[in-house]
Amino acid sequence: MSHKPLILVTNDDGITAPGIRALVEAVAPLGEVVVVAPDSPQSAMGHAVTISKPLRLDKIRSAIYGKLQAYQCSGTPADCVKLAVSKVLHRKPDLLVSGINHGSNSSINILYSGTMSAAMEGGIEGIQSVGFSLLDFSYDADFTYAKKVARIVSKNILAGGLAPGTLLNVNIPRGPEAEIKGIKVCRQARAKWEEEFDERKDPNGRTYYWLTGKFVNYDKGEDTDEWALKQNFVSVVPVHFDLTAHESIANLNQWNWE
Amino acid sequence: MSHKPLILVTNDDGITAPGIRALVEAVAPLGEVVVVAPDSPQSAMGHAVTISKPLRLDKIRSAIYGKLQAYQCSGTPADCVKLAVSKVLHRKPDLLVSGINHGSNSSINILYSGTMSAAMEGGIEGIQSVGFSLLDFSYDADFTYAKKVARIVSKNILAGGLAPGTLLNVNIPRGPEAEIKGIKVCRQARAKWEEEFDERKDPNGRTYYWLTGKFVNYDKGEDTDEWALKQNFVSVVPVHFDLTAHESIANLNQWNWE
Repeated sequence: MSHKPLILVTNDDGITAPGIRALVEAVAPLGEVVVVAPDSPQSAMGHAVTISKPLRLDKIRSAIYGKLQAYQCSGTPADCVKLAVSKVLHRKPDLLVSGINHGSNSSINILYSGTMSAAMEGGIEGIQSVGFSLLDFSYDADFTYAKKVARIVSKNILAGGLAPGTLLNVNIPRGPEAEIKGIKVCRQARAKWEEEFDERKDPNGRTYYWLTGKFVNYDKGEDTDEWALKQNFVSVVPVHFDLTAHESIANLNQWNWE
Repeated sequence: MSHKPLILVTNDDGITAPGIRALVEAVAPLGEVVVVAPDSPQSAMGHAVTISKPLRLDKIRSAIYGKLQAYQCSGTPADCVKLAVSKVLHRKPDLLVSGINHGSNSSINILYSGTMSAAMEGGIEGIQSVGFSLLDFSYDADFTYAKKVARIVSKNILAGGLAPGTLLNVNIPRGPEAEIKGIKVCRQARAKWEEEFDERKDPNGRTYYWLTGKFVNYDKGEDTDEWALKQNFVSVVPVHFDLTAHESIANLNQWNWE
């Protein structure tokens, strides 16, 4: 019997993405690693789960994961976590790591992010969970420093533990390491996407739209993830999934409910 | 020029669902109503947005919405809100109402819910927003009392306003009205889905899974949405989208980040 921690690795960019392979390398020395990830990219899937289609779960037999247990799933990142616990691990892992995402999941992006949805699902299921994202969309991104961060954070979680009902959202600036100033614990910045739609005509003359836009930070605070990342710090935001605006309850009790 | 409030109506069950038609009837006396809703059911889509496919937006020319402006969109509920603001209304509406969902969106279901994702997207965009759900999955559900609740809540929002950065999650027990005890402002209960997967073989002998499970409330509090609904009250939960677990920041600052 091994007493090594059991570590579940997942992501939203799909099982063949360089980011998840970097994450596997980062956490492999810390425990027994099992990979269950989507069979295709699932970016911007939010916390979707698949209820109207059956799910497939297939063991990976190619060489990319060497001797590790690895599975691809036809569903969303949240589906992967649910299936992994029920049908692969048959118990809760000691740690769930999601990513390393190709691109930022700071601030409000946590709600749209498949990477963070997997970590959130882990948290909801009572698993210590963390999502990692590198601020570099490129397929050939350099994950060297991000791997180091992933290992430091994972070690801390395995050693000390997160408060019940919380998980971590970790965003990592592009390297090189020498230019990164360190790791900062932050709050989520008040920021949003200013949507623009690119309007086009198809060959039949019918209109269609591509979602596009720019990310705008309205938060002047120097304790936010956006501020930290702009200063070249790694941002670590503790996250919970009680969405109650507790401070509004008293006010709402004054409304006329008749 | 009309000074009537502009009200955007959307949902996740799709533009032909009885629930959204009930909601239109509920809010029509309060302002100028525009409907922009998915062209097909989008339940359990969480806060997904469509970035890898183009979106379609088509004016409804059938009689089901009479003289109202109504559009169907090929995307998710969050896409509908973004497209409505950018391409239909050309300004922020004074109120966004989402639903009435066929089925509960209480407690943790807010994260999985397309109905609440539309309301959340409205909130993020600075629109006063609310999602309504009736605890009845049936297509033939009786929306009489739910419509009354939707009108009371919408009137309150238009009159008094929600605190910035908040929205409402309203769940309504099955009637009849005589058995419903009133409206309670609540916090989100600590509850979760205990997943089970229904494992089957396809005609080729390959395994597939249906996601299923049961909802379990771990929260003994009498100030939660689950408690209120069980007692036959309507639950109103004020919701925000700052997911920071602020109380964990001090503890994380003690970790060894080297």
